Amino acid sequence: MTDVFRTTRRVAFRDTDAAGIIHFSAFFHYMEEVEHEFLRSLGLSVLARDEQGVVSWPRVAANCQFRGAVRFEDVLDVELRLSRIGEKSVTYAFRFTHQGREVADGEITAVCCRMLQDAPPRSMPIPAEVLARLENRGERRKEKGESRS
Amino acid sequence: MTDVFRTTRRVAFRDTDAAGIIHFSAFFHYMEEVEHEFLRSLGLSVLARDEQGVVSWPRVAANCQFRGAVRFEDVLDVELRLSRIGEKSVTYAFRFTHQGREVADGEITAVCCRMLQDAPPRSMPIPAEVLARLENRGERRKEKGESRS
Amino acid sequence: MTDVFRTTRRVAFRDTDAAGIIHFSAFFHYMEEVEHEFLRSLGLSVLARDEQGVVSWPRVAANCQFRGAVRFEDVLDVELRLSRIGEKSVTYAFRFTHQGREVADGEITAVCCRMLQDAPPRSMPIPAEVLARLENRGERRKEKGESRS
Amino acid sequence: MTDVFRTTRRVAFRDTDAAGIIHFSAFFHYMEEVEHEFLRSLGLSVLARDEQGVVSWPRVAANCQFRGAVRFEDVLDVELRLSRIGEKSVTYAFRFTHQGREVADGEITAVCCRMLQDAPPRSMPIPAEVLARLENRGERRKEKGESRS
Repeated sequence: MTDVFRTTRRVAFRDTDAAGIIHFSAFFHYMEEVEHEFLRSLGLSVLARDEQGVVSWPRVAANCQFRGAVRFEDVLDVELRLSRIGEKSVTYAFRFTHQGREVADGEITAVCCRMLQDAPPRSMPIPAEVLARLENRGERRKEKGESRS
Repeated sequence: MTDVFRTTRRVAFRDTDAAGIIHFSAFFHYMEEVEHEFLRSLGLSVLARDEQGVVSWPRVAANCQFRGAVRFEDVLDVELRLSRIGEKSVTYAFRFTHQGREVADGEITAVCCRMLQDAPPRSMPIPAEVLARLENRGERRKEKGESRS
Repeated sequence: MTDVFRTTRRVAFRDTDAAGIIHFSAFFHYMEEVEHEFLRSLGLSVLARDEQGVVSWPRVAANCQFRGAVRFEDVLDVELRLSRIGEKSVTYAFRFTHQGREVADGEITAVCCRMLQDAPPRSMPIPAEVLARLENRGERRKEKGESRS
Repeated sequence: MTDVFRTTRRVAFRDTDAAGIIHFSAFFHYMEEVEHEFLRSLGLSVLARDEQGVVSWPRVAANCQFRGAVRFEDVLDVELRLSRIGEKSVTYAFRFTHQGREVADGEITAVCCRMLQDAPPRSMPIPAEVLARLENRGERRKEKGESRS
């Protein structure tokens, strides 16, 4: 019963390349921007601060399949789905279309971490109030043996 | 019997983010830069011109798994392997380490295409001389039913 | 009697850096995006095509003064003014504020050029219909001896 | 008696745009990368840590004049000069050429600051040992009334 969060992105000039089309890396930027827009819509942020310091969501995996080229100033319709909520991580699935035509789809998995200045990020359970807001939007499947999360 | 192409990348300031570590998108940029450096080492370019116009290599898929955070000015050792050469496409596999520690690994699949100004890129067989240079470095497996390539 | 074009930009995560604030280069990206948004509002594009090929607007100068730091997710109010319209070039002035506080101001000068594949861009007079739309928004001062325009 | 620090940069694919040439913002990225390479050559870093926290160098001004287009994979020769050392700030001047031809020149002014998490960066005198290393490379002119530095 996964909800869909919908928004749009317009291909910026800096996101094109000398082959005349969008640079593939732009989709990763757009996926992340849409994730952040989604979190804001829930009153959350990918970079939060609590009494102990900074909590953020480093990515552990990202992928994208590019199904059609788009060009400067094309407007993309973007759908975000929360495809999996773990104890410490979240997977977002994205779908990009342009005028109804499939353009790209991909996923980002992010792990809830305490950010430390002199040590690697340390994964932590998703705070209860964050989880509650996410679960209102997605479907939780508690899984065993999540790697690094 | 896949050869390995080795190089390094230093994490630039513009590739870090407010969480204090490398931004995940930087790995996709580095993978592409290393691909291009590899092609140059073979006397090739990802953006070539023949008598009919421009031949380039739009990406159809990219993925990366992030296994450890790195920070500004860290030097990454990067390995590129040609993991698959098709009739029209190539898959590169990448592995990033920092001081011997695993940092990330990923893949990019690129399709040889004629670039057109008013139409989508059109996939084409990899030109014979390009193929010959790539095959000296990688292992070819001719496959049936490659999607979009 | 220069009109002001107003819009907003939210600081994206990829536009921050490990110092915890916006990376200075982001302002140049935002200036350009706002220029393009302004051109679209006039029915124009920074990358146009006529019967002879591609007309675009390479930059000949850009500058920015950074007066205050902003952070991830801050919303910037942006003002664009057409500060000068020459025969072949246009200068845009930008001002960024955040909650009424000055953040940055800068300028971009762009030259109307025919883009050629095997030769440098060639400057050309701004097409009459483009000029007419710009002049409705800005103030034209025809100047002698513009360098490179 | 200003020394010149010399290095090179190759135009990356992500730094080109749909007009077929280098995107102007790339010069700002390259200027910064060359600044950091210069600082490393002196044993310094743009992001340092002392017993009180993080010391970095937010930019207060940047400009660039673009004198000639370059394309993907072109190699740029870059010169950095320390054009001014103040009590709290440094101005770097950059010059880019390609095969002896002028391509761009610009400047960046950066202010030595203590970075704070919940307050704006606070300017501070350049630490003595940093100053000593910079002065070996550039010419110091102590000036009165530097704005914000």
